[in-house]
Amino acid sequence: MRFELLTTDGDARRARLALSHGEVQTPVFMPCGTYGTVKGMTPVHLRDTGTQILLGNTFHLMLRPGADVVQSLGGLRGFMGWDGPILTDSGGFQVWSLGAMRKIREEGVEFRSPVDGDKVFLTPESSVEIQQQLDADIIMVLDECTPHESTQAEVKASMELSLRWAARCRLAHSSEGALFGIVQGGMHPALRDASLEGLQSIGFEGYAIGGLSVGESKEEMMEVLSHVAPRMPKNAPRYLMGVGTPQDLLEGVQLGIDMFDCVLPTRNARNAYLFTSRGIVKIRNSVHRTSDEPIDPDCHCYTCRNFSRSYLHHLDKCGEILSAILNTVHNLHYYHALMSRLRTAIEEGTLGRLSKALYDGWGQST
Amino acid sequence: MRFELLTTDGDARRARLALSHGEVQTPVFMPCGTYGTVKGMTPVHLRDTGTQILLGNTFHLMLRPGADVVQSLGGLRGFMGWDGPILTDSGGFQVWSLGAMRKIREEGVEFRSPVDGDKVFLTPESSVEIQQQLDADIIMVLDECTPHESTQAEVKASMELSLRWAARCRLAHSSEGALFGIVQGGMHPALRDASLEGLQSIGFEGYAIGGLSVGESKEEMMEVLSHVAPRMPKNAPRYLMGVGTPQDLLEGVQLGIDMFDCVLPTRNARNAYLFTSRGIVKIRNSVHRTSDEPIDPDCHCYTCRNFSRSYLHHLDKCGEILSAILNTVHNLHYYHALMSRLRTAIEEGTLGRLSKALYDGWGQST
Repeated sequence: MRFELLTTDGDARRARLALSHGEVQTPVFMPCGTYGTVKGMTPVHLRDTGTQILLGNTFHLMLRPGADVVQSLGGLRGFMGWDGPILTDSGGFQVWSLGAMRKIREEGVEFRSPVDGDKVFLTPESSVEIQQQLDADIIMVLDECTPHESTQAEVKASMELSLRWAARCRLAHSSEGALFGIVQGGMHPALRDASLEGLQSIGFEGYAIGGLSVGESKEEMMEVLSHVAPRMPKNAPRYLMGVGTPQDLLEGVQLGIDMFDCVLPTRNARNAYLFTSRGIVKIRNSVHRTSDEPIDPDCHCYTCRNFSRSYLHHLDKCGEILSAILNTVHNLHYYHALMSRLRTAIEEGTLGRLSKALYDGWGQST
Repeated sequence: MRFELLTTDGDARRARLALSHGEVQTPVFMPCGTYGTVKGMTPVHLRDTGTQILLGNTFHLMLRPGADVVQSLGGLRGFMGWDGPILTDSGGFQVWSLGAMRKIREEGVEFRSPVDGDKVFLTPESSVEIQQQLDADIIMVLDECTPHESTQAEVKASMELSLRWAARCRLAHSSEGALFGIVQGGMHPALRDASLEGLQSIGFEGYAIGGLSVGESKEEMMEVLSHVAPRMPKNAPRYLMGVGTPQDLLEGVQLGIDMFDCVLPTRNARNAYLFTSRGIVKIRNSVHRTSDEPIDPDCHCYTCRNFSRSYLHHLDKCGEILSAILNTVHNLHYYHALMSRLRTAIEEGTLGRLSKALYDGWGQST
């Protein structure tokens, strides 16, 4: 992996990330391809909407169809017919989300498969091994998240376990894919600092911020982010995991984040909740029943170029598959086009002005 | 509408159909776009699979979103973003299928909307009017089907009602779209003859065979078809409604049918039941779990060019939207490619040989 910082605008960074299977222009948004498919999208749709790099879920793929099957079909890229770069998560967050269904020990995490009830044991070593079988361009260390309501002592113990796991992941790692560490430490600046320092002394190709969007308020999240982001290494990519809305992405970029992923644009699309330059459009709303307008007059996606709000409203009412397809095409295109505008603004030093214009538009939500 | 018979091979016909919104090469298969969408397909997918003309359902569209809405959005073609020709059915078959929920009178059919319970009245005149609002290239007359178990007297009375309705449709018709009559008469050759004669004396741009695939055996269906097809006017298109399997299509073509529609390729695709040159592939079967083969090695569709049986098996197991998309792309492509091969064989006078080769392949079903 090669990371080249091209220019900055305030804390915001414009960079180029050369990975095993392609180059990525940052700041970048990565759609989630949970089960080896971004729900409702063919690889052609993904390219057409402006997708540069996908996120694959280790937890889901290890259970179905199994990492060995994916590996034998040419890795995740070959399996799903995607010819660009892929980042895989470690499975840690999904296992942690199982709650009472998993047991966390020093060695790793034991859980029951939600698919067939089988006992599964995930360790830092097996997570890296699976991600290598998936042939990811970027591999994430296995980490433990901590519930928002944890005590500082609990968060500290958890963060330290994550550091020990991160070191084991570094040792286990042997592929061409880059390995990223994940900063934990909850809402506590001192613990976040300790986590970042520990990761840097191990040494990773990139650094992510984990443990956000887990129940804290937007203000708390931004507080942690403003503390951590500027302290992260300048010469490596910075990835904010699992966040968020277009507003979150803009604020993250302004704080110096390079990479984002979130299910929001794809999941919300399937619920007829659409992002536009003029705020949210809830296409299920009967106000759109006879509208011949596109979702967003400023959007150049396939959906906005070819279909009316009336048609999309109708497809949603009828529960048609095409509703999920066209809405997802739009939301992904909106996210990618937003990132593209942010990249250009950083190059031109006009991010502040663009930010104001974006907020003016979003305020029009209907 | 202009119908030009190009050549024949036995009873099979190779023709060109010039419609208001495009030209159609026959024999042709028409996918069903029930609610203004062929389930899971964008218009780009439809073109790419080889679709020349679509079928739209008057019954479904009059209830949702309503013919007035479709009309105000530019007709069905504008509404759904399809720039080729469209044939609409009359709604008669779906209303008839409601069973106890509808009352058939001389004037028309009264029924309760399955969507909102409202009382709806469909007449020959309103059916034509709605189809004109949808801006169909081909409009079908409103007819009554008869249950397979009806007495000959019941079938006769029903067929005569359909003839009176056909005459009223002819009078009500005022658009550029062509109007097709529908031959009824159940399993009774004499009644089929009377129906055909009655329709011809009214005069239509094309003639369809209705009332098949309603519970009769394959042998009974073929018996009626072999009786009716050769008696239909030579200088007008012949359309076999709601039929069928690839084998049915081949036999229909050999008997001189020009047009077909059926939900089979699209509905079966969503149930992981795939048509191939080597018979049926049930992709849900665990035998495909690790197969790196395409669905059909002889197929050039987007799905077969890019994805393994293993991946398609996985998508189906996970209930992914992409499963429906990729399976439908394949099945539609298979149907359209089959029709294209039949057209070429008729031109070359080799339909008999092709028929034998096709049956040899289909026998390999796994």
